[in-house]
Amino acid sequence: MKYAMIGTWRMAYEAIANNIDQLKQSTAPGAALVQAIVEVENYPYFKSVGYGGLPNQECEVELDAAFMNGSTLAIGAIGGVKNIKNPIKLAHHLSQEKFNSFLVAAGAEKYAQQQGFEFTNMLTKRAQQHYQKKLDLLRSDPTLSPYDGHDTVGMVSLDSQNNLCVGTSTSGLFMKKPGRVGDSPVMGSGFYADSEVGGAVATGLGEDIYKGCLSFLVVEKLRQNFDVKTVVQEVVKEFNDKLIQKYGKCGPISIVALDKNGEYGVGTNCEFSFVVGNHNQVTTIYLAQPNEDLTKLTITKPSPKWLADYDRARKEPIK
Amino acid sequence: MKYAMIGTWRMAYEAIANNIDQLKQSTAPGAALVQAIVEVENYPYFKSVGYGGLPNQECEVELDAAFMNGSTLAIGAIGGVKNIKNPIKLAHHLSQEKFNSFLVAAGAEKYAQQQGFEFTNMLTKRAQQHYQKKLDLLRSDPTLSPYDGHDTVGMVSLDSQNNLCVGTSTSGLFMKKPGRVGDSPVMGSGFYADSEVGGAVATGLGEDIYKGCLSFLVVEKLRQNFDVKTVVQEVVKEFNDKLIQKYGKCGPISIVALDKNGEYGVGTNCEFSFVVGNHNQVTTIYLAQPNEDLTKLTITKPSPKWLADYDRARKEPIK
Repeated sequence: MKYAMIGTWRMAYEAIANNIDQLKQSTAPGAALVQAIVEVENYPYFKSVGYGGLPNQECEVELDAAFMNGSTLAIGAIGGVKNIKNPIKLAHHLSQEKFNSFLVAAGAEKYAQQQGFEFTNMLTKRAQQHYQKKLDLLRSDPTLSPYDGHDTVGMVSLDSQNNLCVGTSTSGLFMKKPGRVGDSPVMGSGFYADSEVGGAVATGLGEDIYKGCLSFLVVEKLRQNFDVKTVVQEVVKEFNDKLIQKYGKCGPISIVALDKNGEYGVGTNCEFSFVVGNHNQVTTIYLAQPNEDLTKLTITKPSPKWLADYDRARKEPIK
Repeated sequence: MKYAMIGTWRMAYEAIANNIDQLKQSTAPGAALVQAIVEVENYPYFKSVGYGGLPNQECEVELDAAFMNGSTLAIGAIGGVKNIKNPIKLAHHLSQEKFNSFLVAAGAEKYAQQQGFEFTNMLTKRAQQHYQKKLDLLRSDPTLSPYDGHDTVGMVSLDSQNNLCVGTSTSGLFMKKPGRVGDSPVMGSGFYADSEVGGAVATGLGEDIYKGCLSFLVVEKLRQNFDVKTVVQEVVKEFNDKLIQKYGKCGPISIVALDKNGEYGVGTNCEFSFVVGNHNQVTTIYLAQPNEDLTKLTITKPSPKWLADYDRARKEPIK
């Protein structure tokens, strides 16, 4: 029996470890993945996803999310949505609609109200402090870029019935303009899955990821029988180089993928942590580090110090 | 010298005929395409684009649009936006932003205000009458589908400097839910361009088009040296069949494409009119009709009667 789950960033660890066993049973496709993303959304110390996510330039938390079932190609997506407790649940629900399955902003909120979804103020005290600190920094040095923090949680799951599903959830770019939508709810860019082939999700600078439809491109490469273990890094390198040549620069881009056999692959142009578990191995955190020209990726288990630093950075008081 | 412009639906004709000569000169990439789409947006009798577009289920006109420069891969896009006179101008403007280049709903409207864009009430008397008539129909027969009318204007242009650009603009699905976004502003689904290869735009049921990232897929096929004259129909047929198999049905889908040499291709699973002009031929309206299993496409010039019927259907009183 094959099953697997992979997620972006160290933050996916507990959620995947808690839910991966569901993939052994015959449940609704995507149920384990949705539950895992809900757990990441609910954890207040992850500052780029769900509750505790960092706000836009007007200090409002706006959320993007998507879900795709690779067996039916059904998709649900939301962009620029406020006060929804679990964006991934709304996206999953929308994937059951034949029409109107990508909803944004006030329209998405109205739909969520009508469907009985839970609302809550997603702005935490800590996120407010981050916002204030950033404002102060920008006032003291207006040459600083206001934008950072775009660590989308994205997951791909393969269950024992051969269903590949993908999901994403994020509060997007810190200090973004109101109404800004990144790659996370954009089909083919932030996510794509086809159970006959594979699934992929992306994290990084959405404005660059969607210039290359990178999740769809990874799945197309798997369709052409490229090896998931190497092709994801090749896709990232090729696009990184192309964007620098054509556009002048390329922001951070990281992608995780599963093929239909539960083998996984990773590609990144920056240091990138990810989490994977499958029928062969217990859920594990890894750290991927590309070399300078992106031709090689070194994957290691992070040191206890790295893990402690990660945890401390998320919890220490904001000065 | 090579140049070409192709657009979806008969409605693109006057706009392409008026602007195609600009492509011979060295102007800003996309200038002719943006101006052509503006002309379609401004024409009040086209009921699925810009002024005169049909409203959502709350009788509000909500607009989607996008622009992509295939030489830089710069993209601007808007979704679910109200009261913007020319959505394509706003999308084009956003393509010059490095961050926040896909904006939706109130956030996009705020940005447009700040940037001095023209606002107007996009709901015409005639669109209101269509809405009222549809409401009456749905009351008399609740089994009818409320959804129709999704004739996005999409164009691809190749200028004499070898810049391929694409643009889309639509009021989306008639009677859609507030906040619904279709494929038109979704990168890779409604549009994609790479000046080294080709460009494509789609029209039809967005909820199905974005399940297959069809514009990006067409451009990828051109990258693999498939012939634009035949590959677009092959892409549509293959996806149509796949979606029926996996999802149970497939809505209308039509795609037009140009390759980097200005050759064009079309694919559709329904009767579809389009407009093309290039260095070899004057701007012309064509009608594409697939056979039942979508393996063959018959392309003809529409009869005078077809053209007169098209015009009358858009202008006759609504009873």
